[in-house]
Amino acid sequence: MPNVVLINPFEVPEGQEEAFLAGWRAAAELLQQAEGFISTRLHKSLDPTTKFRFVNVAEWTSPQQFEAAVRSARFQALAGKMPFAAYPALYTVAIEDRPS
Amino acid sequence: MPNVVLINPFEVPEGQEEAFLAGWRAAAELLQQAEGFISTRLHKSLDPTTKFRFVNVAEWTSPQQFEAAVRSARFQALAGKMPFAAYPALYTVAIEDRPS
Repeated sequence: MPNVVLINPFEVPEGQEEAFLAGWRAAAELLQQAEGFISTRLHKSLDPTTKFRFVNVAEWTSPQQFEAAVRSARFQALAGKMPFAAYPALYTVAIEDRPS
Repeated sequence: MPNVVLINPFEVPEGQEEAFLAGWRAAAELLQQAEGFISTRLHKSLDPTTKFRFVNVAEWTSPQQFEAAVRSARFQALAGKMPFAAYPALYTVAIEDRPS
C-alpha cells in the first residue's frame, strides 16, 4: 500500500482532450523525475460528457516530496498553462477490499 | 490492468466522516457480492477541508456489470440514504507509468 496517493480530477470539455493530454504529459514527465515519485495512472472517462473527463491517481513516497515537486518553478510554469479546473489532493487508503 | 475503473469523489463536510463511512460500508458490502466486482479502495484526504474528502476507486469486470449492480433496488435504497454529493463515473486507464 502506498504511503500517499495524489488524486486529481480534471474538468476537460469534450473536444479538448488532446490539448489536455499534451499538457498533462509535459507535467508528468517533470514530476516523474522528482524525489518520491512512485507511479501515476491517468484515467479517462468512458462517457465524454462526464464532469471529470480525466482523473489522475499517483503514488508518492511522502506528502513533503510531492509538495516540493509541485512547488518547483518549472512545474508551476507548466501547470499555469493548463486551462482546466482541477482538484488535486493527497489521500491515504482508508479501506481496501480485494476478495481473492 | 482492470477492464473498467469506477472513480467516485464524495463531498463530505468535516465532522460527518463517520456517517459517511457507515453508509459507504453498507453499500460496498452489497456491491462486493455482485457479478463483476473485482476490488475497491476508499481514499481519505489528509486535509479534512479538501473538497473531496473521500474518493473511491474500484475495479469492475465490465461497465454492464457495474451498471446492473447499481440499478438494483437494494443498492438504490442504500444510496438514497447518503446525503453527500458524489460524482461516480466509469474510466479506463489511458496512461500508466511506474518506472522500475
